[in-house]
Amino acid sequence: MTAQRDDATWTDFLAGSLRPRGTGLSLQGQLLRHLRTGILDGRLPAGSRLPGSRQFAATMGVSRNTVTAVYELLGAEGYIEADRSGTRVADLRRPAPPSAAAHVARSPSLSARAMRIPRRAAVAGDGFALRPGVPALDRFPVAAWKRCLDEAIARRGHEALGHGDPCGELELRAAVLRHLAMARGVRATPDQVVITKGAQEALALCVRLLADVGDTAWIENPGYRGAQDAMAAGGVDVVACAVDDAGIVIADDDWALRPPKLVYTTPSHQYPLGSVLSASRRLALLRNAAAHGAWIVEDDYDSEFRRSGESIGAMQGLVPDAPVLYVGSFSKTMFPALRMGFLIVPSSLLPAMRPVLGELLRGGRRFEQLALADFIRDGRFGRHVAAMRRLYRERRDALRDALGKHLRLPHTITGGDSGMHLALHLPAQVPDRRVAFLAREHGMAPEALSAFVSSATPTCNGLVLGYGNTEASRMDDLVATLARLIDRSLTGDRR
Amino acid sequence: MTAQRDDATWTDFLAGSLRPRGTGLSLQGQLLRHLRTGILDGRLPAGSRLPGSRQFAATMGVSRNTVTAVYELLGAEGYIEADRSGTRVADLRRPAPPSAAAHVARSPSLSARAMRIPRRAAVAGDGFALRPGVPALDRFPVAAWKRCLDEAIARRGHEALGHGDPCGELELRAAVLRHLAMARGVRATPDQVVITKGAQEALALCVRLLADVGDTAWIENPGYRGAQDAMAAGGVDVVACAVDDAGIVIADDDWALRPPKLVYTTPSHQYPLGSVLSASRRLALLRNAAAHGAWIVEDDYDSEFRRSGESIGAMQGLVPDAPVLYVGSFSKTMFPALRMGFLIVPSSLLPAMRPVLGELLRGGRRFEQLALADFIRDGRFGRHVAAMRRLYRERRDALRDALGKHLRLPHTITGGDSGMHLALHLPAQVPDRRVAFLAREHGMAPEALSAFVSSATPTCNGLVLGYGNTEASRMDDLVATLARLIDRSLTGDRR
Repeated sequence: MTAQRDDATWTDFLAGSLRPRGTGLSLQGQLLRHLRTGILDGRLPAGSRLPGSRQFAATMGVSRNTVTAVYELLGAEGYIEADRSGTRVADLRRPAPPSAAAHVARSPSLSARAMRIPRRAAVAGDGFALRPGVPALDRFPVAAWKRCLDEAIARRGHEALGHGDPCGELELRAAVLRHLAMARGVRATPDQVVITKGAQEALALCVRLLADVGDTAWIENPGYRGAQDAMAAGGVDVVACAVDDAGIVIADDDWALRPPKLVYTTPSHQYPLGSVLSASRRLALLRNAAAHGAWIVEDDYDSEFRRSGESIGAMQGLVPDAPVLYVGSFSKTMFPALRMGFLIVPSSLLPAMRPVLGELLRGGRRFEQLALADFIRDGRFGRHVAAMRRLYRERRDALRDALGKHLRLPHTITGGDSGMHLALHLPAQVPDRRVAFLAREHGMAPEALSAFVSSATPTCNGLVLGYGNTEASRMDDLVATLARLIDRSLTGDRR
Repeated sequence: MTAQRDDATWTDFLAGSLRPRGTGLSLQGQLLRHLRTGILDGRLPAGSRLPGSRQFAATMGVSRNTVTAVYELLGAEGYIEADRSGTRVADLRRPAPPSAAAHVARSPSLSARAMRIPRRAAVAGDGFALRPGVPALDRFPVAAWKRCLDEAIARRGHEALGHGDPCGELELRAAVLRHLAMARGVRATPDQVVITKGAQEALALCVRLLADVGDTAWIENPGYRGAQDAMAAGGVDVVACAVDDAGIVIADDDWALRPPKLVYTTPSHQYPLGSVLSASRRLALLRNAAAHGAWIVEDDYDSEFRRSGESIGAMQGLVPDAPVLYVGSFSKTMFPALRMGFLIVPSSLLPAMRPVLGELLRGGRRFEQLALADFIRDGRFGRHVAAMRRLYRERRDALRDALGKHLRLPHTITGGDSGMHLALHLPAQVPDRRVAFLAREHGMAPEALSAFVSSATPTCNGLVLGYGNTEASRMDDLVATLARLIDRSLTGDRR
């Protein structure tokens, strides 16, 4: 191609460019984008010579500096190349644009492990009635929380913008511990406390730090699905242990047969059945874990909301140096969007764990952490939890009364002594998943009890009913509707 | 044991209890703790009968309700048991307290995979000079950020306390996308944007969603260690690809030999060398990835701070439906403690990915997300980035000048066109890790270039010098000290 023809090509091309298109881009940005597109789509062919920057600037009515900057950048990107005879469009051997369809045909969407993640019913919004795990959002003292945040920002300002300690602000770790020592009998020092973005991250850390692919973990059945997910994500083999009214059932033989690396349990209020792990089982578990080199992961969710007097103490503090990793979250005592939880690691593991945690965790969220420390220290946290305990008792009573009034089938209720949900056990012929599904249409999101079962044969059937975010005055109407749905599910009536 | 003896045991035991100990516990709490301890340590022996609640209440001078509540709770915990003849202390077969030492002797601390996580030098504080990756913390407009937060809390209040969309607030996803479309040429719709807690979480999602254990990933060498960590954590085999002054080097043969599932690259500003991936390599990479069913993970870190005119566009937007997952973070454009980043997924993957993301992500952090959306929309984000671009140019120039003035060894500098760091290449005989180590004592935290190399034989040697959080006026002194440390490291002088 001759220099004249190149010039003509460029003049034609440039003539059509640079109409202001409201892109918000600078003149230079528009020029760049236009030239890149022209080179990619072949209107400016490979090998064609660029006009000199002076000529280009004059043609386009832009400053020569702009043109020089554009050329430099196109050069750095490899769109144009300088040689002895001037600057030319590079040969990009431009491919046909890869089509999304062709790509996906070759690459069968997600990884096998992602495909194995169970796709449950889409999570209901927080506004659904009877949804487990949602606290009374409208009762949270937002104004007081905002004051704590404001004060943290005012007090620490620029100083708290950096990464900070990967395990969290020491102020918060100390405040959490003081609270837990008193409320739950936890024994530790602040350096054993690790702030996480929730119980789920704490569980994932336990798995990664203490178990290898192919190791065994015991979990409760029925049980918290998040624990099972965390084990599966870490490649750990899960053994599901039965649960009765004294918590997780483990025979002494089990320890000999297939000793686990991790035992996940919810001793204060088994999820979802609500039983309390008995003292003798707690001690046997602690003794056997120590003897077999296993670690107990104690998920102490909801324990703050225990109603019958004092809370049951944590396993973590039952004996000195218990082989327990203690997991908790502020999602229910504060609010779900806070995304903050904690892990308390045994002091014996601390020297080995600290450098690894430094690599795995990134710290940050310091204003929120400082605000939360303040909120706990000033007693606002304790007062809020106490108020919610009273509120949830009222809501639970209303729910129980309504169930007694409207349910005609034989049923039992477990787990109402703590937390924000109870388990309603129904006869095996009630299709609990179908009832849970139908309830969505009526603005309710109870969960099917059988969905918490990890063995092939369901060990329980019924509904998990959350009452945290549902007003007592609504219970009667809601349960009347639910009772109707249950009756219809048995007769096959789909109205 | 007779009832009389039991009564005597209890009277003795109770006499010694309940001295106010400033624990902050209620009377009931103190009683509970005291009784639990007595049962666990054997002072209240298994089988001994409890006094009736009326008698107990009278002895202790507490209300009968308190005693009834305590008994109920001890019963629920399994410490005491009711039988026909009354209530007795349960037989807990109390073990000797597991000693931490014995436990650790059996269980060799952490998992094998945790032990494989490289323990690098403890991370320096954000206040260290020349530390890579830290922005100018003292220049961040904290007051403006606080106003955005306050407004988000005032505007949404209780409504934003719940979980929300697992992929993030739509307001933020739309604001991020508008910004990226303009600044980086990214092509997507807001539902393709996933808000994460940083680039690292985005990388971990890419690995888990798209690669299985034993799959291959290509990464840059030298390169970002976080990418290598994410691949290793996901069980993916890493192939380290060389980097030259036109970015990652991939031969066509490589695709035939060992095609990867993922290719991790930093095309706008290779980390840490700073080269720009050429247009022809970009297109070849896109074409080959599409043909082989691989996914490109484009980490567009630091691209906002490009100095020579307009930023180089993202690979994500170079062709329609590019097989690219686009990763970014607000740690440097905003501040590290914010812990917020994003992932933009190809639209073709969205239908398969959405339900899985719903299971893996928990949403939340809504006030922060809404505040950030506001900060971006109102142009404060753009103005801050522009101001930092000017500031970093000044700091980079001061650093370059100082290096030219003080360094007597032959050296080259790369990567100063963008971001907040440059790479100083030094002769192979300079022990770069030792220099980096010695610099700590002088309040500096440059990183050794060889530490970014993942192959056995180091392909580069020198220092990565961050200038984001170091004032221009300090560069001369700092570099003079650094030059002295380099000279001494060669002569073995340890002063």
